[in-house]
Amino acid sequence: MMRPFKSLIPLEDALEIIIDTIKPIIRTEEVSISDANGRVLAEDVTANMDVPPFDRAAMDGYAVRAEDTYGASQFNPITLKLIDVVHAGEVSKKKVGTKECIQVATGCKMATGADAVVMVEHTEQCDDKVKIFKPVHPRANVSGKGDDISAGSKVLSTGEFLNPSKVGALAALGIQKVSVYEEPSVAIIPTGREIVNIGCELKDAQVYDINSYTLSAIMRENGCAPVKFDIVLDTYEGVRAAMVNALKYDVVVFSGGSSVGESDILCDVVRELGDVLFHGVQIKPGKPTLFGVVRGKPVFGIPGYPTSCLSNGYRFLLPVARQLARLPKKKDIVVRAKLAQRVVSTLGRSQFLTVRLEDGLAHPVFKESGAITSMADADGYVDIPVNVDLLEKDEEVDVILL
Amino acid sequence: MMRPFKSLIPLEDALEIIIDTIKPIIRTEEVSISDANGRVLAEDVTANMDVPPFDRAAMDGYAVRAEDTYGASQFNPITLKLIDVVHAGEVSKKKVGTKECIQVATGCKMATGADAVVMVEHTEQCDDKVKIFKPVHPRANVSGKGDDISAGSKVLSTGEFLNPSKVGALAALGIQKVSVYEEPSVAIIPTGREIVNIGCELKDAQVYDINSYTLSAIMRENGCAPVKFDIVLDTYEGVRAAMVNALKYDVVVFSGGSSVGESDILCDVVRELGDVLFHGVQIKPGKPTLFGVVRGKPVFGIPGYPTSCLSNGYRFLLPVARQLARLPKKKDIVVRAKLAQRVVSTLGRSQFLTVRLEDGLAHPVFKESGAITSMADADGYVDIPVNVDLLEKDEEVDVILL
Repeated sequence: MMRPFKSLIPLEDALEIIIDTIKPIIRTEEVSISDANGRVLAEDVTANMDVPPFDRAAMDGYAVRAEDTYGASQFNPITLKLIDVVHAGEVSKKKVGTKECIQVATGCKMATGADAVVMVEHTEQCDDKVKIFKPVHPRANVSGKGDDISAGSKVLSTGEFLNPSKVGALAALGIQKVSVYEEPSVAIIPTGREIVNIGCELKDAQVYDINSYTLSAIMRENGCAPVKFDIVLDTYEGVRAAMVNALKYDVVVFSGGSSVGESDILCDVVRELGDVLFHGVQIKPGKPTLFGVVRGKPVFGIPGYPTSCLSNGYRFLLPVARQLARLPKKKDIVVRAKLAQRVVSTLGRSQFLTVRLEDGLAHPVFKESGAITSMADADGYVDIPVNVDLLEKDEEVDVILL
Repeated sequence: MMRPFKSLIPLEDALEIIIDTIKPIIRTEEVSISDANGRVLAEDVTANMDVPPFDRAAMDGYAVRAEDTYGASQFNPITLKLIDVVHAGEVSKKKVGTKECIQVATGCKMATGADAVVMVEHTEQCDDKVKIFKPVHPRANVSGKGDDISAGSKVLSTGEFLNPSKVGALAALGIQKVSVYEEPSVAIIPTGREIVNIGCELKDAQVYDINSYTLSAIMRENGCAPVKFDIVLDTYEGVRAAMVNALKYDVVVFSGGSSVGESDILCDVVRELGDVLFHGVQIKPGKPTLFGVVRGKPVFGIPGYPTSCLSNGYRFLLPVARQLARLPKKKDIVVRAKLAQRVVSTLGRSQFLTVRLEDGLAHPVFKESGAITSMADADGYVDIPVNVDLLEKDEEVDVILL
């Protein structure tokens, strides 16, 4: 009744199989640009106008004909006649003629006749006389029509991750809504007769459902929409029924029920309905991880122990979520630190060693097997490779922050 | 009418003044733990129960009396009698007596009488006889009641940032709702008669409002709730009225209206109603930045040019948002790269130089002054210090990713 794992595959192979299998989402939806930050664009955006839509002053100062300023210097200023003052948003009705100028603020539309702006710092105004202390060349301190974005050019492309400045580029074009990729949906299915929903009373031998919450949090912060299922008893019929229900979502994640032992059920269900791509990975914790495909949908079986489940969440589900959602790969924040104590690892297993950072040292956090606090009290983790069985005290390690 | 800046203060001083002024939010709200990830806890959480709530098997195997296994070895196994099989969530009615065992799965409550678990890998079962090939000591492969979290202990503290594993710790205790700090509210007020809401038609000399969208995006992705105001004409009365309306929010941000030039209005309004703490910073772009306090509320005046506004958003508003929301400081992701070309900077100004990363080189992105695309096309920025006026081609720089 207990089937041993025939063989464990290396973590890298498992990740490669997953990455080759996950298909990025193709469904799209329209969102207001106010809600577009952090989403992934599902259309090319071509400019329907010039930005700026007119030549404008890039500095506070005086709009002039550049040639009138040639020869000006600190000791030999050239004096121009001020014929108007315009504020941003206004249009001067006057035309700048020879030896004339119009006072402008940054962002003002350039006055007719003027081809440059002298910065206010290089001038001195007295009534309608403006002394110019420095010459300017034509187009100096002027932002040309379309210099930022020219009408007809492609501004953003399908698949681009929208950050604040890209949202700003959409706003510059007056675009109110854009097409983005939908957040992929993920069925999160807790299994096991010992698991009870929070809010219900625990009976003897029961524990609360933790994994639905931790996995949902990881999926949500990586661009997916988790859908929490009711707790499934680990019977063949129960798991099979939940699976069939869950196939309308983009990915199916079972937690619990994939350990060797009584719970080869998920493996049997996946085999009946689809294909098991691997079952058993050279990692610690989290070895009895299952991955398969059922009717085109990727299915995960993640061990139920909260630490195994959550470390697998970071190792497997996080990259899956981002690939599904078309988000760029997560950039880990890594801190170098010395180990506060000697750590023994298991040859042949990549260990996910949670650590707390204190006084520049990495202190391994380990309570009882499966303790959620050995994750909750940690600042990050060290990935100990398969071929390492010992890390000495004071050895430098890379801590990947959680 | 154009007032020069009396003196520019260094960026570091400006940031210090801001940090000393911003008071972290004190309002709290209750949220479901399903929505608590990424929030900041506003209460201490003390365990009202033990986790696990009972001694449980940490491995698949057989619950035994450890003393019965002493002396077992590969060649001299000890044989025990299987008296029951329990699954997780079940309780065996039987008591493990001398030379007896009960088959258990990981997570099972320990059977009465048993004090250790022999891993299935070290056994061989034939009907009701189980051969034990390896001795175990008492408590081996058993997770004790309360080993993860003991009743009465403090599990999480006020001010902790909730990540997936901390949410998991809450779930482990069966907690459904927690008190978290509210998202601080931020009034975002675009000013200037040249600014038009997206969705409206541009008239001559007008441009679309960009800054409300870029600043709102930054505030929202750093834990705050932006409230976009209508566009305010830059008259004293208009700005004053908007200010008074905005004081019900936690921070007030005006974009535009803080440049030397016609727009000292904001400065005058802040002086009338409160105090200006600085006006003018040694940075490029974004020099004419204003910071003050009105009736206890921090007020920013950020220059209206989209690039100045957005770089100030990253430099000033991002840390402000996180301090307000009690979020941990942002950990910048920094990439070392060689400059693709020589860059001239301005002595006495910290420059926010946007760059695109390509082929391992940092290519400065600069279009016309104020171009939103000089941010939107960038992967990150280089912070060129005040005392540097030239960076050579191929010089190594730190690129902070956007």
